[in-house]
Amino acid sequence: MSSTTKPPSSKCDIARPELADQGLRRIRWADQDMPVLAQIRERFAREKPLTGLRMAACLHVTSETANLARTLQAGGADLMLIASNPLSTQDDVAASLVRDFGIAVAAIHGEDAQTYYKHVAMALDHRPHITMDDGADLVSAMIFIAIDRLDLLSTHQKPVREWAERFSPEQRKQLFNDIIGSMEETTTGVIRLRAMERDGVLKFPVIAVNDAETKHFFDNRYGTGQSTIDGIIRATNLLLAGRKVVVAGYGWCGKGVSLRARGLGAQVIVTEVSPIRALEAAMDGFAVMPMSEAARIGDLFITVTGNKHIIRREHFLVMKDGALVCNSGHFDVEIDLVALKEETVQFTPQVRPEVDEYRLKNGRRIYVIGSGRLVNLAAAEGHPASVMDMSFATQALATEYCVKNRGKLAPKVHDVPREIEEYVARTKLATMGIAIDEMTPDQKAYAASWQHGT
Amino acid sequence: MSSTTKPPSSKCDIARPELADQGLRRIRWADQDMPVLAQIRERFAREKPLTGLRMAACLHVTSETANLARTLQAGGADLMLIASNPLSTQDDVAASLVRDFGIAVAAIHGEDAQTYYKHVAMALDHRPHITMDDGADLVSAMIFIAIDRLDLLSTHQKPVREWAERFSPEQRKQLFNDIIGSMEETTTGVIRLRAMERDGVLKFPVIAVNDAETKHFFDNRYGTGQSTIDGIIRATNLLLAGRKVVVAGYGWCGKGVSLRARGLGAQVIVTEVSPIRALEAAMDGFAVMPMSEAARIGDLFITVTGNKHIIRREHFLVMKDGALVCNSGHFDVEIDLVALKEETVQFTPQVRPEVDEYRLKNGRRIYVIGSGRLVNLAAAEGHPASVMDMSFATQALATEYCVKNRGKLAPKVHDVPREIEEYVARTKLATMGIAIDEMTPDQKAYAASWQHGT
Amino acid sequence: MSSTTKPPSSKCDIARPELADQGLRRIRWADQDMPVLAQIRERFAREKPLTGLRMAACLHVTSETANLARTLQAGGADLMLIASNPLSTQDDVAASLVRDFGIAVAAIHGEDAQTYYKHVAMALDHRPHITMDDGADLVSAMIFIAIDRLDLLSTHQKPVREWAERFSPEQRKQLFNDIIGSMEETTTGVIRLRAMERDGVLKFPVIAVNDAETKHFFDNRYGTGQSTIDGIIRATNLLLAGRKVVVAGYGWCGKGVSLRARGLGAQVIVTEVSPIRALEAAMDGFAVMPMSEAARIGDLFITVTGNKHIIRREHFLVMKDGALVCNSGHFDVEIDLVALKEETVQFTPQVRPEVDEYRLKNGRRIYVIGSGRLVNLAAAEGHPASVMDMSFATQALATEYCVKNRGKLAPKVHDVPREIEEYVARTKLATMGIAIDEMTPDQKAYAASWQHGT
Amino acid sequence: MSSTTKPPSSKCDIARPELADQGLRRIRWADQDMPVLAQIRERFAREKPLTGLRMAACLHVTSETANLARTLQAGGADLMLIASNPLSTQDDVAASLVRDFGIAVAAIHGEDAQTYYKHVAMALDHRPHITMDDGADLVSAMIFIAIDRLDLLSTHQKPVREWAERFSPEQRKQLFNDIIGSMEETTTGVIRLRAMERDGVLKFPVIAVNDAETKHFFDNRYGTGQSTIDGIIRATNLLLAGRKVVVAGYGWCGKGVSLRARGLGAQVIVTEVSPIRALEAAMDGFAVMPMSEAARIGDLFITVTGNKHIIRREHFLVMKDGALVCNSGHFDVEIDLVALKEETVQFTPQVRPEVDEYRLKNGRRIYVIGSGRLVNLAAAEGHPASVMDMSFATQALATEYCVKNRGKLAPKVHDVPREIEEYVARTKLATMGIAIDEMTPDQKAYAASWQHGT
Repeated sequence: MSSTTKPPSSKCDIARPELADQGLRRIRWADQDMPVLAQIRERFAREKPLTGLRMAACLHVTSETANLARTLQAGGADLMLIASNPLSTQDDVAASLVRDFGIAVAAIHGEDAQTYYKHVAMALDHRPHITMDDGADLVSAMIFIAIDRLDLLSTHQKPVREWAERFSPEQRKQLFNDIIGSMEETTTGVIRLRAMERDGVLKFPVIAVNDAETKHFFDNRYGTGQSTIDGIIRATNLLLAGRKVVVAGYGWCGKGVSLRARGLGAQVIVTEVSPIRALEAAMDGFAVMPMSEAARIGDLFITVTGNKHIIRREHFLVMKDGALVCNSGHFDVEIDLVALKEETVQFTPQVRPEVDEYRLKNGRRIYVIGSGRLVNLAAAEGHPASVMDMSFATQALATEYCVKNRGKLAPKVHDVPREIEEYVARTKLATMGIAIDEMTPDQKAYAASWQHGT
Repeated sequence: MSSTTKPPSSKCDIARPELADQGLRRIRWADQDMPVLAQIRERFAREKPLTGLRMAACLHVTSETANLARTLQAGGADLMLIASNPLSTQDDVAASLVRDFGIAVAAIHGEDAQTYYKHVAMALDHRPHITMDDGADLVSAMIFIAIDRLDLLSTHQKPVREWAERFSPEQRKQLFNDIIGSMEETTTGVIRLRAMERDGVLKFPVIAVNDAETKHFFDNRYGTGQSTIDGIIRATNLLLAGRKVVVAGYGWCGKGVSLRARGLGAQVIVTEVSPIRALEAAMDGFAVMPMSEAARIGDLFITVTGNKHIIRREHFLVMKDGALVCNSGHFDVEIDLVALKEETVQFTPQVRPEVDEYRLKNGRRIYVIGSGRLVNLAAAEGHPASVMDMSFATQALATEYCVKNRGKLAPKVHDVPREIEEYVARTKLATMGIAIDEMTPDQKAYAASWQHGT
Repeated sequence: MSSTTKPPSSKCDIARPELADQGLRRIRWADQDMPVLAQIRERFAREKPLTGLRMAACLHVTSETANLARTLQAGGADLMLIASNPLSTQDDVAASLVRDFGIAVAAIHGEDAQTYYKHVAMALDHRPHITMDDGADLVSAMIFIAIDRLDLLSTHQKPVREWAERFSPEQRKQLFNDIIGSMEETTTGVIRLRAMERDGVLKFPVIAVNDAETKHFFDNRYGTGQSTIDGIIRATNLLLAGRKVVVAGYGWCGKGVSLRARGLGAQVIVTEVSPIRALEAAMDGFAVMPMSEAARIGDLFITVTGNKHIIRREHFLVMKDGALVCNSGHFDVEIDLVALKEETVQFTPQVRPEVDEYRLKNGRRIYVIGSGRLVNLAAAEGHPASVMDMSFATQALATEYCVKNRGKLAPKVHDVPREIEEYVARTKLATMGIAIDEMTPDQKAYAASWQHGT
Repeated sequence: MSSTTKPPSSKCDIARPELADQGLRRIRWADQDMPVLAQIRERFAREKPLTGLRMAACLHVTSETANLARTLQAGGADLMLIASNPLSTQDDVAASLVRDFGIAVAAIHGEDAQTYYKHVAMALDHRPHITMDDGADLVSAMIFIAIDRLDLLSTHQKPVREWAERFSPEQRKQLFNDIIGSMEETTTGVIRLRAMERDGVLKFPVIAVNDAETKHFFDNRYGTGQSTIDGIIRATNLLLAGRKVVVAGYGWCGKGVSLRARGLGAQVIVTEVSPIRALEAAMDGFAVMPMSEAARIGDLFITVTGNKHIIRREHFLVMKDGALVCNSGHFDVEIDLVALKEETVQFTPQVRPEVDEYRLKNGRRIYVIGSGRLVNLAAAEGHPASVMDMSFATQALATEYCVKNRGKLAPKVHDVPREIEEYVARTKLATMGIAIDEMTPDQKAYAASWQHGT
């Protein structure tokens, strides 16, 4: 336990402090499988690259995130952690972070939208120099305020608006002038941020951590792939062998989910809007068809597109009795639950933990897992520590990079520097006991030259 | 047969005109599996976008390439085709191209380096407005001449130098002023061209056709994957199940080869110099180790790195008796055959067609397939038509794009425009009978917006 | 709920009657995925083939077994159900069986050996005409008594001995004269029963349900495969991609586990004692080596051999720090926990639920999942309902077959009749919406004939 | 070369003696990958277990078979070899067997039915003590004669009838009294022989070599799997990725073919008549449907059922334009070519080597590979040597077993003794450098006992 100074209670909002012991065990268990982050933590503890900086991180509050929080704290940051998703918070972990590590946490499993945005307001009130986001919720709130467009804040976001209204319009524009930069962890968030950059409203540099190969090659593919299936099986105890599993979206996450579903014996059907990805899926041996067709034959549906209403009224109406539906995309908008409810004559929540039954007017039953929220976090434990090790090592190093380049980075979306990626991958390999080749001087010269041929 | 005007004999050099019937059958067989290219050919025949332009293409002279040549010709181009690899030329196809389609071809299966470069000189003498390359051999010869660095031409390239020396240094610099642009088909070539761009010697725009997703996602992965294994099995009749297969390089080609070797039951070992790719290979379930270790245990070695001397003296010396070695990277430099020969006490060529036996001083035998040249072309028929359909459709459309933007493209390496890729993929899907989803207006708005959140 | 007659309390021993509601939901959830068994249940309810018969079933008390119990009851049997494994009992299911279905159950999750054998004694006291076994515990107790070899009952089995001692030696020999037959569900049990048959002590017919293709092809392979991995991931949240997973045993269960581990990205190593199976594993692309070698490099070890002490002292001593060890074979003897404890300097139970830490004298930590008991039952929910549907449909029909052939079956191990297997498979396919071909009369004649040739 | 005594020319009928050099190279190449057979050959050469015995073998005349022939000869047998399939004979190998090894061979690539049965008659005339069969053609001819049912010989088999008619009916019954036994290599042959046994006409013991696990686990699955795909790709250069491949039959061969097709990226559809196998295919993640449905959507069809007319008129009529059809079952009756011809308006043979085009009345084209004969032998080189090593090692040892038990084996179908299988597998593993575990004495006792439990 690196620190035992208690965080100010004004900066904490957790549900079950009595679970701290269990949380501590979980944090330590995850830590064993996060050796790259541990090495960085040791160096940060010596070098203190983040001293004097306030940070706000809006992330899934899990045992893996706890180890990132410890690392940032070891580096000297004054960190406040809030949840990026109401269902993913592990209350025991939150409790241990507060009690054992003295880190400020405002996150409660199952919190409603009001509480969620109250926590966002608390994070803003922390007046961070650096933020970390998982879906760009924190950044977008800051942007809306900074461009004085409080009207863009939805009714859910009332606590944020109220906080902002404490300041005059003029003050608001200055509120985030101290921001050094922000890290973004998700595909969804990066897409939003690039749109902001395009529209000229991005006011500070953002590092697209998600786009690092050490992140999305591994986290999105292997992490989402396994943990999505894990969440589904925990929730349903479904045998995948012989089932028709429909995966909507064949990006990195969709590739991972499809591969794992096949690896467990399912017959996978992919739906896509991109012809290139659709063709890739077909060449990978998957059946490809529009959702309107897939809806009729699927046993299990998994959305991972980053878009909305992928499964909607017209699809529910043709599904087989007993169809299972879930989402592993960032936001809970991929399944149109409003339409589903409208078609439902009898709703039975929790026929199994995290499984709700919708009996439709046509007599068929549809089961929604995890209320349409990220199924790997709602019904399982999110990504395994081993893969978060890489993502969070990249997060920590990108943060350090941001600080070192304070004032030098333009207000746009930046890639993670290649050296950081190479370092993370190289260290990870070493901790796995894997040695690789080095180019000989001769080969390096060959690779750099254009003067030889057939 | 779109044309029967005979090409001028000064522009032809083929080995076996009597095989034209067989060549025609092969071209037609391939054509059946190249429906996207066929659609473009039909449009080109109507619209003639390449009228009045001389083209030189340095490609593998196979039945698939023949259908690209027919397409360019249909578009109005005055095309000359030469071989990009001495072992890949299908003499029957070359014969049919000349006899049945009136296309100028200079390519002979098994030609020596002198003949190879004589053909390059012939292509230069065609004074092309547009070139197509598979490994940048044609482009680099032009560049060496245009920057008046004839010293960079190796002794093998004497015919090219002699051709260039017909012109004064001043003339040489102007020789290629008419070039509209060049297309490049390989990873290897693109790397060379980017190095040229970096060093400021690239004198005209190049389209990196290789980098199109419709090319390298499919051709490098599925094409090289299957055809490499095909070449090895044809040459050896080896059962892959249960063998230790060492794949050097985990780029797109290496991924494809590894996947297919596993798909046939092999235990695959990957070697890499990039830690990120090495980690990806490990996460994909492959064993990863340095070549020095892999050399001791492998039954079959396949190089696909794009670099040189991947398998060298130190590796040969520790290999098991009977080890099989081959290359599927672009150039034949990945296996150090010079070192192998120096360690050899008895050399028996062609113990099977395309398999040479090297008996080493240590008594062990090593078998080299296809003389270390691209094994899928040396011992099989190269990429299947279906995948070349996409690569060559992209080539044809990139050529048209180049012409339409004559004078507007800077002298650097350009990406294939996204619309071309989308068109190729969409058309390919349609010919496969696969329908996909379209975004709803609502979804398009969602994808473009940054104003919504959790 | 087919019956609400309460079972006599003398025949019940359950832990948590208050969980019956939750148990009922689970039973119904499983029922949705057991359509073949449901069809049989409907027929049994009409035809009552088991009327007047007492049955004792020693099975894992799960929601799937509950649906088998309901089926036997629907057929008219007076059933008593006890647990075949102390850790697999789902207390909520047991509670619902008693309250909602009036079935006698004696099974408590986590019960000690005394209680376990007390329940066996209760089952014997039920004086069954027919028994069902999962590991031959019930049958072997009956045999020991019937051959008057009470000395073979271990000290754990004291309650059974005491029960038997209520009878005189002469009476004991007659005790089980009414037995019509017994069903056996596991490979382990069938091996024991065949050994008994060989040694001439088997006193009544046994149907080797395990050996039915509708059982072991599916349950052992797909069921054990998925649920073993499920148990491991629930217990550890381990990412399998890139791990070295050692699977001891390449029988049907081992094949399933290996396939699924690979399907999740692991690098699988198989150990075997049978050269034929070892060769099969190698040809399937797995690394094969002795445990002494595998022990040094594995990250995760899974035993599924049916034998004992597969992982023993010499192996623990060379394992890497952090190695995970578990068992998915029937008995908890595959991992030599006694030896492990002797080498341990610090034991920390439950560092995660179902994970115990053993810190060895050499400083390394070894983690044992599920105390070395069946990991899919200890840490997950056992086989998915869909696969148990087939096993239990076969069980139910084999029971009916036994009764119909009362007195006609010799006292040995019998195969499940082919027609039963065909019926189960055909019905399962129909419920999955899969149609298949029928042989034409011409083809039937061809298949039966030996009079045609090349 | 173990022997150079020329075989009597009356016992030889080969096509191209001038190819002996090439044949010898092939035999040696295969020999390198048949180390188990080589060990047996060395022992046979010392022990001469077959001295004084005449043998007739009706097998595919390939380089692998040549090494079996050498082994039998080394054991002292007076061997005559004929072809079991008109298209599989490698004329160069036949030439080398005669010239370099002095083995009698009557086999010509592409021979017609008359010649085929002339060779069968020559083999009968050799008056063998032991026969080896691949499809039971030799055995069934002997049986028809021995039971004096010459009417069962078809018109094709006229040469056999004529040979038989040289003897009186009485003599015929005695003709094969000297037979010690016969070996059968195929599933198809074993089914025929079991039907003969059932009908009481089997006159001598037959060893079902096919049923040995060392044979069908490996040869049928890995051998047929790879070589079938190999034959298809050589014949067509088809990219399998993204294709719908229909595999008819999910026995060992069908499993192998399906696995390999998937391994190359195809989307595999299985058709079956057995519900159990159909269910297994579904659980393995394949699409399962009747041929009438599959026929409409397949790109490539492969039959491996052992039955006839699997693809027939009704199927051809609904196939897509360009559908490819081939067979990898033993006999060429699985595809109804007669019906196909009747529906054909234009037949173009050999549009590629081994590919015939049938243009139907409906305008669509269907391509038949290898004339519907075993595609792995017609268009490729049959099973790789490595897998034939095991099959033929089992053949050689089964032959020795037969001789050692002369007069002791009943006239029925016998299994290969388990010790032979274990020896072959153990030796194969050793030659692959793979060590495995041995049971400890403790484990052996445990495995044999029935006296322990939970």
